This record gives sequence, C-alpha cells and structure tokens, in this order.
Amino acid sequence: MKDDKTRIWYGGDYNPDQWPEEVWADDIRLMTRAGVNMVSVGIFSWARIEPSEGVFDFGWLDRVIDMLGSAGIAVDLATATASPPMWLTQAHPEVLWKDYRGDTCWPGARQHWRPTSRVFLRYALDLCRAMAEHYKDNDYIVSWHVNNEYGCHNRFDYSDDAMYAFQRWCERRYSTIGALNDAWGTSFWSQGLNDFSQIIPPRFIGDGNFINPGLLLDFKRFSSDALKEFYKAERDVLAEITPGRPLTTNFMVSASGTGLDYDDWADEVDFVSNDHYFTPGSGHLDELAYSSSLVDGISRKQPWFLMEHSTGAVNWRPINYRKQPGQLVRDSLAHLAMGADAICYFQWRQSRAGAEKFHTSMVPHAGENSQDFRDVCELGADLQRLSDEGLTGTRLVKSRVAVVFDWQSEWASEHTATPTQQVRHWTEPLDWFTALADNGITPDVVPLREHWESYEAVVLPSVYLLSAQDSRRVRDYVSGGGRLFVTYYTGISDENDHVWLGGYPGSISDVVGVRSEEFAPMGSDFDGVMDHLRLTNGTVAHDLADWITSVSETTRILAAYEADPWTGMNGVPAITVNDFGRGRAAYVGCRLGREGLAASLPSMLDAMGLDMSAQGASADVLHVERCDESDQRHFDFYFNRGHGIATVQPLGDVVVASLARMRAPGGPVSIDPNGVVVVKRP
Amino acid sequence: MKDDKTRIWYGGDYNPDQWPEEVWADDIRLMTRAGVNMVSVGIFSWARIEPSEGVFDFGWLDRVIDMLGSAGIAVDLATATASPPMWLTQAHPEVLWKDYRGDTCWPGARQHWRPTSRVFLRYALDLCRAMAEHYKDNDYIVSWHVNNEYGCHNRFDYSDDAMYAFQRWCERRYSTIGALNDAWGTSFWSQGLNDFSQIIPPRFIGDGNFINPGLLLDFKRFSSDALKEFYKAERDVLAEITPGRPLTTNFMVSASGTGLDYDDWADEVDFVSNDHYFTPGSGHLDELAYSSSLVDGISRKQPWFLMEHSTGAVNWRPINYRKQPGQLVRDSLAHLAMGADAICYFQWRQSRAGAEKFHTSMVPHAGENSQDFRDVCELGADLQRLSDEGLTGTRLVKSRVAVVFDWQSEWASEHTATPTQQVRHWTEPLDWFTALADNGITPDVVPLREHWESYEAVVLPSVYLLSAQDSRRVRDYVSGGGRLFVTYYTGISDENDHVWLGGYPGSISDVVGVRSEEFAPMGSDFDGVMDHLRLTNGTVAHDLADWITSVSETTRILAAYEADPWTGMNGVPAITVNDFGRGRAAYVGCRLGREGLAASLPSMLDAMGLDMSAQGASADVLHVERCDESDQRHFDFYFNRGHGIATVQPLGDVVVASLARMRAPGGPVSIDPNGVVVVKRP
Amino acid sequence: MKDDKTRIWYGGDYNPDQWPEEVWADDIRLMTRAGVNMVSVGIFSWARIEPSEGVFDFGWLDRVIDMLGSAGIAVDLATATASPPMWLTQAHPEVLWKDYRGDTCWPGARQHWRPTSRVFLRYALDLCRAMAEHYKDNDYIVSWHVNNEYGCHNRFDYSDDAMYAFQRWCERRYSTIGALNDAWGTSFWSQGLNDFSQIIPPRFIGDGNFINPGLLLDFKRFSSDALKEFYKAERDVLAEITPGRPLTTNFMVSASGTGLDYDDWADEVDFVSNDHYFTPGSGHLDELAYSSSLVDGISRKQPWFLMEHSTGAVNWRPINYRKQPGQLVRDSLAHLAMGADAICYFQWRQSRAGAEKFHTSMVPHAGENSQDFRDVCELGADLQRLSDEGLTGTRLVKSRVAVVFDWQSEWASEHTATPTQQVRHWTEPLDWFTALADNGITPDVVPLREHWESYEAVVLPSVYLLSAQDSRRVRDYVSGGGRLFVTYYTGISDENDHVWLGGYPGSISDVVGVRSEEFAPMGSDFDGVMDHLRLTNGTVAHDLADWITSVSETTRILAAYEADPWTGMNGVPAITVNDFGRGRAAYVGCRLGREGLAASLPSMLDAMGLDMSAQGASADVLHVERCDESDQRHFDFYFNRGHGIATVQPLGDVVVASLARMRAPGGPVSIDPNGVVVVKRP
Repeated sequence: MKDDKTRIWYGGDYNPDQWPEEVWADDIRLMTRAGVNMVSVGIFSWARIEPSEGVFDFGWLDRVIDMLGSAGIAVDLATATASPPMWLTQAHPEVLWKDYRGDTCWPGARQHWRPTSRVFLRYALDLCRAMAEHYKDNDYIVSWHVNNEYGCHNRFDYSDDAMYAFQRWCERRYSTIGALNDAWGTSFWSQGLNDFSQIIPPRFIGDGNFINPGLLLDFKRFSSDALKEFYKAERDVLAEITPGRPLTTNFMVSASGTGLDYDDWADEVDFVSNDHYFTPGSGHLDELAYSSSLVDGISRKQPWFLMEHSTGAVNWRPINYRKQPGQLVRDSLAHLAMGADAICYFQWRQSRAGAEKFHTSMVPHAGENSQDFRDVCELGADLQRLSDEGLTGTRLVKSRVAVVFDWQSEWASEHTATPTQQVRHWTEPLDWFTALADNGITPDVVPLREHWESYEAVVLPSVYLLSAQDSRRVRDYVSGGGRLFVTYYTGISDENDHVWLGGYPGSISDVVGVRSEEFAPMGSDFDGVMDHLRLTNGTVAHDLADWITSVSETTRILAAYEADPWTGMNGVPAITVNDFGRGRAAYVGCRLGREGLAASLPSMLDAMGLDMSAQGASADVLHVERCDESDQRHFDFYFNRGHGIATVQPLGDVVVASLARMRAPGGPVSIDPNGVVVVKRP
Repeated sequence: MKDDKTRIWYGGDYNPDQWPEEVWADDIRLMTRAGVNMVSVGIFSWARIEPSEGVFDFGWLDRVIDMLGSAGIAVDLATATASPPMWLTQAHPEVLWKDYRGDTCWPGARQHWRPTSRVFLRYALDLCRAMAEHYKDNDYIVSWHVNNEYGCHNRFDYSDDAMYAFQRWCERRYSTIGALNDAWGTSFWSQGLNDFSQIIPPRFIGDGNFINPGLLLDFKRFSSDALKEFYKAERDVLAEITPGRPLTTNFMVSASGTGLDYDDWADEVDFVSNDHYFTPGSGHLDELAYSSSLVDGISRKQPWFLMEHSTGAVNWRPINYRKQPGQLVRDSLAHLAMGADAICYFQWRQSRAGAEKFHTSMVPHAGENSQDFRDVCELGADLQRLSDEGLTGTRLVKSRVAVVFDWQSEWASEHTATPTQQVRHWTEPLDWFTALADNGITPDVVPLREHWESYEAVVLPSVYLLSAQDSRRVRDYVSGGGRLFVTYYTGISDENDHVWLGGYPGSISDVVGVRSEEFAPMGSDFDGVMDHLRLTNGTVAHDLADWITSVSETTRILAAYEADPWTGMNGVPAITVNDFGRGRAAYVGCRLGREGLAASLPSMLDAMGLDMSAQGASADVLHVERCDESDQRHFDFYFNRGHGIATVQPLGDVVVASLARMRAPGGPVSIDPNGVVVVKRP
Repeated sequence: MKDDKTRIWYGGDYNPDQWPEEVWADDIRLMTRAGVNMVSVGIFSWARIEPSEGVFDFGWLDRVIDMLGSAGIAVDLATATASPPMWLTQAHPEVLWKDYRGDTCWPGARQHWRPTSRVFLRYALDLCRAMAEHYKDNDYIVSWHVNNEYGCHNRFDYSDDAMYAFQRWCERRYSTIGALNDAWGTSFWSQGLNDFSQIIPPRFIGDGNFINPGLLLDFKRFSSDALKEFYKAERDVLAEITPGRPLTTNFMVSASGTGLDYDDWADEVDFVSNDHYFTPGSGHLDELAYSSSLVDGISRKQPWFLMEHSTGAVNWRPINYRKQPGQLVRDSLAHLAMGADAICYFQWRQSRAGAEKFHTSMVPHAGENSQDFRDVCELGADLQRLSDEGLTGTRLVKSRVAVVFDWQSEWASEHTATPTQQVRHWTEPLDWFTALADNGITPDVVPLREHWESYEAVVLPSVYLLSAQDSRRVRDYVSGGGRLFVTYYTGISDENDHVWLGGYPGSISDVVGVRSEEFAPMGSDFDGVMDHLRLTNGTVAHDLADWITSVSETTRILAAYEADPWTGMNGVPAITVNDFGRGRAAYVGCRLGREGLAASLPSMLDAMGLDMSAQGASADVLHVERCDESDQRHFDFYFNRGHGIATVQPLGDVVVASLARMRAPGGPVSIDPNGVVVVKRP
C-alpha cells in the first residue's frame, strides 16, 4: 500500500451509488470525524459503471473518488465484477450457474455467474480492463479489490461448462484415466471410466444414495481452482495495466471451516484480505481469535487486511444477535492483535433498501447520533493512537504451540457415508484453540501445508486426510523431538480418501502407539444407544470414540472409559502418551469437546513434558502479543474472555483501554466484560 | 340473496357427483331433517359438466338442483372452474403452473393452473358462460360461487406467462423503469434494470442467497392481483348474463396471516365469504373469534358468509385433532356472533375415496346414526330459533378497541434477511386480541386500509410497513385525541420496504416518544446467547426487543428490562406511554406474548386513561354482541373460554344454550367448557 | 443349491475387482480359515466384465472363480446388472430414472436406471445372456444372484417410460377407464380420466397439496411390478440357458415396512434371499427376529438365504453404531434360528475407497488380527457344528400365534391426508411381536396373503386395507373358532382405499363388536392439545385412539379411558373382547406401544381364553425352535434379550454357546447380554 507505511487502515465498503449525491458530502464529513482513511468502492457497481454493453459511465465514480481523495481518504477500488448486470444475463443466460439438480440460478440476488463460462469471463475482463485503463493514473487508489467473496454463492456449479472444465482439470491432475480410476476407486459400484469425457460433476443421484467420495473431493478441489483461475485472469489484466498497484481479494476464513482452499489462494494475492463475521454467544471472542490466527497462518505472518466485519448484527442469520457494549471496539482490536494492519467494515452507511438493509454499519439507520457511530469514532481514535505508538510493522508473536487446520480434511469429512455425520474436521481445531486458551495458552492456527514443524508442540485435530508425505512429516517431527497431540479421526485416509489399512490411525499408528479397530459413534437417534462415554479422568466423550484394542509398549494410558461391560468399551484406552524417537505423541481417542480437553490438558501437558506456565495469562484473559523483528516495539493485548472482571498486571504503558481502567498508576488493570487493554512494553 | 331475508343460511358443499344417484334422495331427506336450507354445488365438477372440450352434460346437475330446490333447499352454484379436467391439461400443458425452481405442477391434485394463462382463462370463461346461460333462469339458484379458494395452491406461479404479466403489472404500477429501480433499491448488488422486459419473477437463486425484497413484495402484490383479475373476468361473464344474482368467492382468512390481500378483494364481491378451519388446542376459540372479526372488518360490518368450516377434524394437517363435545355447535355460533349470516360446512357427506376422505362432514362415514349428525341437527334447530328471534339483520356491535391487521406488513415481514426470522407481523394482532379478551375486552380486528381512526383505542401490532400517508393517519389520530398502542417492529419501512431513517420506529418515533437504535433479537441457536429478557413488571420478553436509547420528555416508562449489565439491556425502557397532542401512545418494545400482554394491559390501560371495565365480561368468557341499527334487537353471545364452568348473568331471555343451563329463572347461567348461550335483550 | 445338502452356507459378497490380484490368494487363505464356503461374486462388475459395448472380459472372473472353487468355496454368481457402466449411460442417457420433480438421477452412485426402459433392458439381458453362456458349465457356481436389491434407489421412476408402462399396467388391471375412475375416486376434484393415455405418474403437484391416494397406491403396486417384470426377464434368460441352476435375488425385508411387495415376489424365486441390517439400540434383537420371521413367512417355511448383513457398523446411517461384543455371532444365529440356512455378509473384505469403505466387513480395515475376524472364524466354527448336528433340513417351528403384516396396508397408510401422519401400519406388528415376546411368546409374522387362518391366535395390527374377500376371511376365521386380536386403524378401507362406511372398522365392525365414529389423534404440535390418554388398566395411549361410541351386546370392556370430561374421551372403551360365532375377537382401540401392549396382554389373553404359559421362555429370553418334519431333530435357540444375565434350563445338549456357560453338567445355562445358546434335544 502506498505512502504512509505507519498508518493502520481504517474504513469500510462504501456504496455511494445507493444514495443521492447530496449525501456524499455528509459521508466525507463523518468519515473524517471517525478517522476513516480508506474505503472500498464499486464492489457492486457494474450496472452503474457499464449500464449497457460496452457503454461506460465513470463520471459519478470519478467524482466520488475525487471527493474521497481530496479529503485524505484512500480508495481500495473494486473491479466491480462480482455481480453482473441484468442486460448481460438477459443477453447471455448461459452464464448463470446451475445447482446439483440442474436448476438455473436466476438473477435476483448476486453472484449468479458460473466461474467456468468463457462468455462471462470475457465480459468481466473487459470491465477490468476498462477500470484499469481509466484509473491507472489515479493516485487516490491504493489497491485493487478484485471481484468479491469468490464462491460465496457460486462455489459449486454443475452446468455443462463446469463439466467440461472439470474434465480438463481431471486430465491435468491425473494424466491417464487409469490413474483417476485408481484415485476414485471406481471399481466400486461399476463406476469405471473409459475416458475423461465421461466425467460428470456430482449431480443429483436421488435421495438416500451415496456418491463416489473421490469424485466429490476432487470436485471441491476443482471448484476452488476454477474460481482461482477466474481470479487470476482478472488479476493479470489489472497487473499488466497498473503494475505497481497491489492486488487482493477478500477471503471468507472462519471457524466454520468449509469454503475455498484459502491457503492455496494466498499464493496469488499481494496481501491477504479477510471478511469475518462474529459467532454469537459464548464462542464470540475465541472463534474470532481462532479465525484471525488462521488468517495470519495463511498470510505467513505478513500483515493482512480485515476487509469486512460488522459493527453489530448481521442480516443473514435466522436470528441476528446484536453486539454487546464494547464488542465493536474489542472485536476490531482482537483482529488487529492477531496480525491485521487494516480494520474495515461492511459497510460505511447502512442501506435503506435491498437485501442487506438490516446489516449494521458504521453509520446506522439511527444516524450519527448513535452509540454505534460514537464507538466507530472511538475506535478510529484508538487506531490512530496505536499507529502513533508504532504498531504498524509489528507482527503477531509466534506461539510455542500450533493447531493445524486443513481444508481438504474438512472437505473429505463433510461427505456422506462416514462413521458418523456428527463428526467433521472443523470443530476440533477450534475446541483445541479454546481449551488451550482455557489453560492460558494462545496457540497459532497453521494450515497443514505450512511449516508447523517449527513449533515446540503441534496439535493434529481430526486431520482426516494424511498423505504419505504428510505422514512422513508427522513421523519426522516427533522422532526429531516434537511434541504432538493427535485426536481421533486423524490420519484415516490418504489424499485420495483411501483408508490407511492395518488399524486406525493407519498412517501414523506407530507414532501415536495406539491401534483402533473400529469407530464407536454415539448418539441418541435410536432408543437405547450409547450417547456418551465417561472417562476415568472425569471428562465425558460424545459423538465418537475409537475402539482402541492395543497400545504399544512405550505408550502410557492417561485415561480410559468406564462403561457397562456389555458395551465393550469398559477399560478401553481413551487418552494416551507415547514415546517415539526423541519426541512424544499424545492421542485423544474421542471427542471431549472444549471442556473435556481443557480439563484433560494439564495432565497431558505434564505427561508430554511441556511446561507452558510461562505462557502467561490466566484463563479469563486472552493474551496476544505483537512485536517487530528486533523486539524494539512490543505490544501486549489483553482481552477479557468472560463475564467477570479480569485483572492483569501490565508490563508497560497502557496505550488503549476500552471498558478497562487502571486502579493505580503502574498497578494492575481491571478489565470489564468485553473490555480490552493494549500495553506497550518500554 | 333472494327471497327470505330473515333466514340464516345453513348447509355446506354438496358433491353429489361423488355418489350414485340413489344416494341423492337420502341426502335430501337428511338435509331436511337437519334444517339445511342451502348447499354449494358443482365446485369440482368441471370434468363431469364438460367431459370433453365443448361437450356439456348438464343433465345430472339439472336433476340434482331440481331435487334440492323442490325440497326448499337453495343452491349456491359454483362456476366449476377450480380444477381443470385432464383433457384440458393434456391438450394444453402450458396452463400448468411452475414453482420457483421451474418445475411443473402436474395434475393429480387440484388447482394446477396458472392464473396468467390466456389459454386457461379462455376455457374457464367458456365454462362460466355455459353455466350462466344454462342456469340463468333457474330460481333455485340464489348466488354464484365463483371458482374456489383462489390461490390456495397456485398463489405463486413462476412461469413465463407469469413473468410477462408481472412485467406489465410493474409497468402499470411504476410507469418508468427508473421509478421501479428506486422502489426496489436496485442500486444494491448491481440489480439495476434498463427495461420492464428485464423483470424476472423471484425464481430460484441458490440456497443461502438473499433475493431483492422489493421484488418479492411486489411479486406478492402482483400474485394477489393476477388472481383477482382472473376472478373479475369470471365474475364479469356471469354478471352480464345473470345481472341480478349476487356473486361471491370464498376467501381463506385466518390468523395465520399470509395469503391474498382479502381486504382489497372485498371490493369486488357482492358479499364476503370465508372458509375457516379451527386451530387445535387452547387457541381454538380465540383464533376463531379473531379471524371472524377480521372477516367482519373486511366486510365492513356487512353480513358475510361462513362458506366452509368443519364439523370436526380436517385431513390436511400432520395431526388432525377432533373437536371436543360441544365445539361443533359452539364454533358455528361464534362465527355467527362475529357477523356471519350463513353457516356452511365443507362438506355435506364425507367422501369414501379421494384425498379428502378423512375430512369430517355433516354426514360422517358413520352415517346419520352419529353424534356429529345429531349435533348438525341441533345446530340447525338453533339457527332456526335465532332466525325466528330476528337475528338476521343485526350486525356485530362495534367495539371500543380496534386491533389493526395488514397483509402487506405480513408479506414484507416474511422475507429473508430480517433482524430475526422469528418475528413476523401476524402473531402479534392475535396475541393482542387474546390478551384483551383476557382483560374482558372483545376488540374488533380491522385492516389497515379501513377506518380504524373511528375507534377510541387502536392497536398497531408489528405493522412493519407504514407509508407516509399511513404514518400521517397515525399521527393525526393520536394528536386528535386517540389512544394508540404500538409495538416493536411497527413503522420500520415504507410501502416499498425502505427503512424510515433516524431511529426506529422511524415513521412515528415522535408519536410514540421513543427512539430505538438497534434490534435485540433473542434465541437459543448459539451457546450463551440471550433467549429472554425480564421486565420490571414481572413479564418476560422473547424473540425481539428494541434497544431504546432515548425517550421524549413527555414519555413515561412503565417497565424496563432487568439484565446483566454487560448485555447492554439493563434499564432499557420496555413499555412506555407518551402524551402526543390530545392523545396518548403506548409503546411495547418487545414481544411479550399473550400472557405478558395480558399481565401488562391493566397498567397500560390505566396509564392511557382508558377505563374498559364497562366492556363487561370476565376473562373466562368471550362476550360478543349483535344488534340492529336501531338497537331494537340486541343479542348477547357468551362463550366459555376455558376448562372451568363459567357463569354469566343474562340481560334477557336465553334463546340458545349449548352445554349451558340456567340455575333458576332469571338467574345466572352456568356454561360448561365449550358451551355457549345466546341471550336476547328485551 | 447343489450337492452338499447338509451344509449351512457361510460367506458374503466378494468384490475381488476392488483389489489387486495379489490379494486374492490371501482372501482364499482367510476364507478357508473362517470356514467360508460360499461367496457372491460380480454384483457390481458390469464395467469390468463389459468394459465397452459388446466387448467382454471374463478372464479375471474366470480366474477368481477358479481359485474359489478349487478351494472348495462355492460361487453365487451375480448377473452384474445392478449398476450400469458409464459408457452405457453416456450413450443412452434416456435410461436414467427421473425423480418426482422431473430431475434426472445421474451416474455417480448406483442403480441409476429406469426399470421400464426397453433400452436398458436390452443391455441387461445381453449381459445376462453372455454371463449364462460363459458360465453355464461351471460347476463351482451353485446359484444365480440376479441383479441386486431391486428398487433400493430406483423404486419410483417418474419418467415418460414409466408413464407409458404405468398406463399399460392400469389398463391390464382395470380393463376400462370407468373402472379405474371408480377405483381412484376421480369424481373428486375433477380428476376424471377419459382414456388410459391421460394417466400421469404422481409427479410434483406443488408443496402442501394432496395427490389422489388411489393413484399413489396403484403407482406403488405398479412400481413393484415393473421391477418384478425386469427381474423376471433377467431370470428367464438365465433359466433358459442354465435350467438346473437355482435363481434368487436379494430382498430387503425389515421392520421398517415399506419397499416392494416381497410376498408377491417370493412366487418368482427359487429360494428367498434377504438382506437385513440391524436396528441400533434396544430394539436390535427383537427387530431382527421380527424381520426374519417375516422372511420365513414369505418363504412359507422353506429355507431361505440371509444374503447380506453386517459384521458391525454400517455406513449409510447418519450415525453408524457398532455392534457390541457377541452381537456378531448372536445376530447370525438369530437369523439361523428364524429359518435361514445361509449366513452371508456384505462384504468379505472392507473397501479402502468408495462410498462403502466405512461399512464393516468380515476382514476389516484392521486386517485379520482383529476381533471381528476372530468372531467371524468363531461363527464359522459354530455353523459347522450345527451342520454336523443336523440343523440343515430343519425349519422354524410354527408358533401358535401369527402377527399379520401387509405391504399394501403399509403403502396406503404412508399417504398424506390421513387422520394423523404419526400412524402407519408398520410399527404396530413389531410392537405386537415384541410385546408377545415380553410375555414369553415368540409369534410368527405372516403376510396377509398367506394362510394365517391356520394359527390358533392371530393379530391384525393396523391392517388398514381389508378387501371384501379378506374381511370374509377374518369373519370366517373368528366365527369358526379363531382368536383374533385387532387394533385401531384396521379394516378402514378396501383394496382401492375406499372407506368402509357405517362406523370404523367398517369391514369387520360386527366381528370385533365395536363401532367408532371418529379418530382421536393425539400430539403436541399445538398448545393445549391432547398428547396422551390414560387407560383404566394403567397403560397409556399415544398418537391415536378410536372414539368408540357403542359396543355390541356380546362385547366386554377390558379397559376404558380416564380423561377430563370436556375432552369427550372419558369412559370411552379402549380394549374390548367380543364373542363372535365360535371364536373371540379382542379390539385395541389405540396405540399402546410395546409397553402398553405387554402390560395389557395377560388380561387380554385371559379374556380370550388363551393359555400361552406353555410357550415357555421368560421375558428376558427369546426362545426359538427349529425341527425337522418328523421332529427327529429339534433345536432350541435361547437369546438373552436384556442387559442382565438370563438363565435357561436346556432340554438337551448345548451345541453352541456364545457368551454363555453351563453352571454344572445338565444344569441351567447362564447367558450374558448378547449371548446365545443352541440346544439339541435328545
């Protein structure tokens, strides 16, 4: 980003085309008051910029950018390609995507285009080119915002265009149809293919039937790649015309896990941007910190943009809970703590009409005389103070512990015909993150592809897919001295979802020193079935347990199940620790949930020989640090995690305090619920 | 209706074509025994009347009408256009409607025609013409029953015929595409239209996406109008040929709220007819009275027809509860009390076969030797007595209190992407009706379009849409001295669903004297979210509360929330009363439900300066009055609302008593559960 | 089956084509070790056998059959027609079936063919012919396994092919369109048909609408027949070429009731085969025994094949519970007890890939060193011992009591617009089976079409459809001295689903001596509705009660309801016994569930004059007997039904004991939970 390297960007999506021009001056006035220094413009303006084919109207956009720039507000300019205008889809209905039943997705909302349409690509690139040519010399524009939230609605398209593109993708991946047949296991159910042209997307197969999981997994990979190719085509047009201007597109990383493979996408952007919307209720802060840590992992500790979040309630949930007092400021500072150098909202001014009119914004329906806008101004002042104190240029301090997340394991574990549909990859990493925080540890969340081997301790939480290569990485890590935590449903299958044989977890059974012969799912959908298992350490397992029938000689059993003997689960090992090479591997053979993990962790850490007491904060505070490479500038962020008043002893000067106060100079700081303090070490 | 102006019509749908002709004589015998004096004939007889294109067979129908008429039973003759025969849809599959996914609705049930098909209209009008010509001189026929339950299944059609008709409708409404773009807010998400020909119905947009709410709202308006146009075309053919014969079509008004805009439709019928089916359980009587009161509001206190209800269980619910002893008579008398001058059932004789064979009827499967048929006879006698006493010509006495209902607010509040999907318009008016009854008050239910200003007190319960004009009506009403009760989710948007800015309820914030900055939805779909709020008056709010941040100087706070301070809701005003002009406006900023409203009403009425004690009945009795214009004939209806024995002191002679008895002459009357007494004042 | 008439077949589905040939030798080794003597081969091998149109590759199959046969393992050879290869559906997409919305069922899973496609039939028969010709002289093959689980996914096809075939089927059934119009009651809702060509399958009619139930019922009959015709065509090709080789196809009979009319199908196979998968939880054993007894009923006490069951968890439920220790052996022996002479699994070796990789198998992922494989070997030994002791040739001993099951009643009771959607036929027979077992009685389950008149006592549990002829059978049975138990929802309609008039159960009201005028459904989907009824005998009814208004003079009331008087149910008869002719008929007018039935049975048996104490076992044991015609060989099977230790006194030598032990020679045997003993009488 251009010029001032020390400022923290602050702003939001700005849609001036939804308002009469009279309102624009008021927007500028309020932005200035709030300390806004950057806005994203034009994301959904295609119909306005190109009102009919090949006819462009930049006048209004020129005016608004000029007003912004003159007021010192930088512009993150969208390519405006996110939502095609009606004239385009009327002339070319063949660009509309189709769902798995073959039904057309009609205009009426947004993102109603198929990623593999050559026709649509041509129109989109024409618009990119026109935008780039028109704005290539405009210095108010500091970055390109390419398209918007790729795949939010059009992630899966089952049209014939998609089919042909999928066939080509498969051919590139497998070269021969024999290799694909092997990967997909098509000898099952007479599904053998003679030719790539026989490939069909995973379309409707009737209810209650089960589609080939290899096909499903590759279709998810293809769908992520198809959108990425579309992005790259847009990017390349822009990069050619405006070579110096950085490019990004906003990801949607959150703890819900599914979506595009953003770790893979991160290779293709100049800086990572993310849209994050809070989880209501008790998981609010932890999920936010977890997701942001994962963004930081994707970004490999380079600064990243928080491109969208909300000042309060969203509009797209069945029930759209508001934020509590203090959460507006607290959430933004939490993203900042986890490595963001930009804090932006969807959106600047709340819409009066349209499908998002009930999404809160920086200027709410109530107007500037409102708590939200006052909080927005306070946050602007806080960010200015942090800039002044030199936060920019610092990065999230690396933790001693990494929790691994893997999109492909999530994708594979979402499929039908698994041991239990209650278990997927994504919940387990978040449970570990939270349980570690309950023990005063703030771990890093790291994609499987990245270098988690550099951490002192690593958690593999239900990482269902482990390729031979990743299994080797795991083995090398532990034998070389690493401390590894592994859970049930890890290392079950290879990258083609072929099960590792010989007893679960087949790929790393030797490393963890346990061997399970069967899964023991739990539930309550039939009378008299087992719906939980009690462990000897007082915790309770739900949903899934491994039926571990043997452990290696070097394995110690930390907890076992207590159950009626006829269940076959009484005395079965539940938590173990194994010495392997120079390291150790703990195995948790069931879903304990956040509470069970938090309760089990102290003895597990002890058995692993890990002393994490220096990590610092107590369970009621989330402690996050940022510092620069030379540790000249070091900031401590303390967030109250609970509903009581938390107390911390600052190691320096309190730079920002929200719902928090120092009791005496240099003394401890009291933090109210939803409060935060930022301390700069001397 | 012809001839005898003093009789109460009594009867039901009669489908002789489902039975061998031998049965018809038995039907007449039993009708006579039951006091039936009118039946609706031919509703689903198209295939029988016109067995192939242009070939008509009136013989059987002539015979049956003659048998009925000769026995003194009048005929409400259907146009028979409700369900097209197979030969028609085979020859013209293009008349079948399509759902939002584009899937054809096939024959196999009923109403499988699209309202905008010119082809279908032609066939339907040909049949109307043939019927009218054939029966124009038949004096046994007292009215036309046009079609049947318009829009019950084919309310929304997404076919191309519907698309073209919708385009024309939009053009008539908006004249210019610019006006439509403004109304729909199409600057949002690049949805701008260049031309009316670009309009598409709200077809499938993919799951989890959000369609333009302006488009949705207008499509509902259009769909109501498209069916109304169809009705008018049928009507006009009939009216031309049989100018003196009154016309009606049966509405489906009930407290579930959604459906066609029947208040608008009421302008087009000679008299209003309604089909009502009871709500099982504790809301049975209140919902019935509420719905009938709304029908009376639509009918503007003109007598109306109860065209269908059931003697007992229906067949179309997942669980079809039976009526308790006494409810058959009680329900009919309750409709009568609320203004009906005709009591009809679906249907006369219970079918042996077909999709409605388990729908109870006047002559059940068990035959004439059955409790239901005995009750049907008793009811016939009761109605005769009431006729004799002069009930006909009286009308429902106007209440002092009006509860406002608004179809368009219901439609708009049904859409996705609202503060919470748990809140819609329709539940609130019924809750108020019931809570008022719990306080001894039987209010009138009045459509927003009608003249509620003439009432002493008015309730606006979650009337989400208030146009500028309706807002002015509200303001004038209160400033002129009216007593207004307003709830949360009222006056949020204008008629285009554009939010009124400046703080909720934006359109009448000054009138109610409160300003809310945000919605505070409640629920339990996430751990740790707020699922209720306690008020200082002891009641409890669910689902939605307003975050009221300020009240005007003239506003008194009757109740506030008690909550943990970190929720931000502690001390926030919940119920207020404001002096405005010469009137007062109470505001209830949350969903209290029937119980919370009932408990809060006494202090609210008091603060509003309303003394309703004269209204009369106690909470365990529903008291309804009918009288004629000169108050010569005055009838009191008393219905037991509960499971105990209720006691009332009659102000005159008991004319009808069902499950009730006088303890001593002139003394109080005891009414059992499900019982009713009708008293004629001297 | 060929040669050794005394052996019990033991094995499973074998899919060698999913594994490299190196694995085959290992398979043979392990099969031999486990005592496997038969496997089903080739079920899903079409793509491998005929890799492109008309090109056959039998080499691999020849090799595998040869290896098996040489090792003494017989082959049940599939026709391989269950799942068509990609080349076929690519060339002929018109063979893919369509769902009720008209959406194509695409390849990607299995069974994606329409039963009425002439094109597909031709390909399938060509394959049958090729298989039969190639293998006609192979002595290792002992039977034909025709296709696989017909109708598991393609039971209902709504394509035009299906439509035309349905029209022809209707014409054969009804001869004239008038007869069909009568049967379907098309005078209702103007559905009259002029011609068989106007018939359409029950395609999409819009949500919330109600399709003609006669059409629905006949479409289910047609769909069963269409698949049966397909089967017969395959069978006839095989039978012509290999006249001596027995043919079967695997049914899917289970207590869930719905599916094809297997009793009708049983006429067309040389021996009945069944696939059964256990119900998790407390109903596990009882449901298994019930289903197997029904298979025995279909098979008319001829030996039948258990073609598929599972060693442990399946993969197709949302939660796939494992089996408890002992259940692998116990389940197989229970099937054997109920009349199976073959015990086979899906499948031999657990897949590594594909949609069923998490379905447990004889050789699990864990390999031969596993509890499952050890149990499989134990079971093999047990079966060998039972063969040696002469079990083969014995059959399930006929019970004194028959519980009737009827597919057509199940089909009809599944439809919409019934008194309550909570009540269907299928749950009631299983409840009776279990409640009888709770009283120490193991009844036979007998299809309505079979000769249940030969039993001392018969239960008609919610047999909704009773034709005039079946009603006569019932009347004759009781008047001739039979003891009949009848429940609510029996004899409501005739075979066309036309209600029997005059009061329920109209067809046999005189026999049972009760007359009900209405149904009284119960539930909790509305506030304040009745959700249960208490009986004077202490039991509780749910879901449905009959409103019995009179009983005959010969009827005794065993229990009535106790309820608030205003419900109208207080004192209404609930359980009655009537003397009719030389017999007696008990009537249970409500759903009591297993517990209520079990508690009510002793007094009902007493009132019926039935002394069942000699039946033997106590409630904690399921006792099943097999013997030969001359009662030379008599085996008692005792299964522990509960979680305690059960004790039985054997009447002979313990031949097999699993989780059971004799305390002293000749003394009582203790059976652990999930245990079983088999005793041979001397």
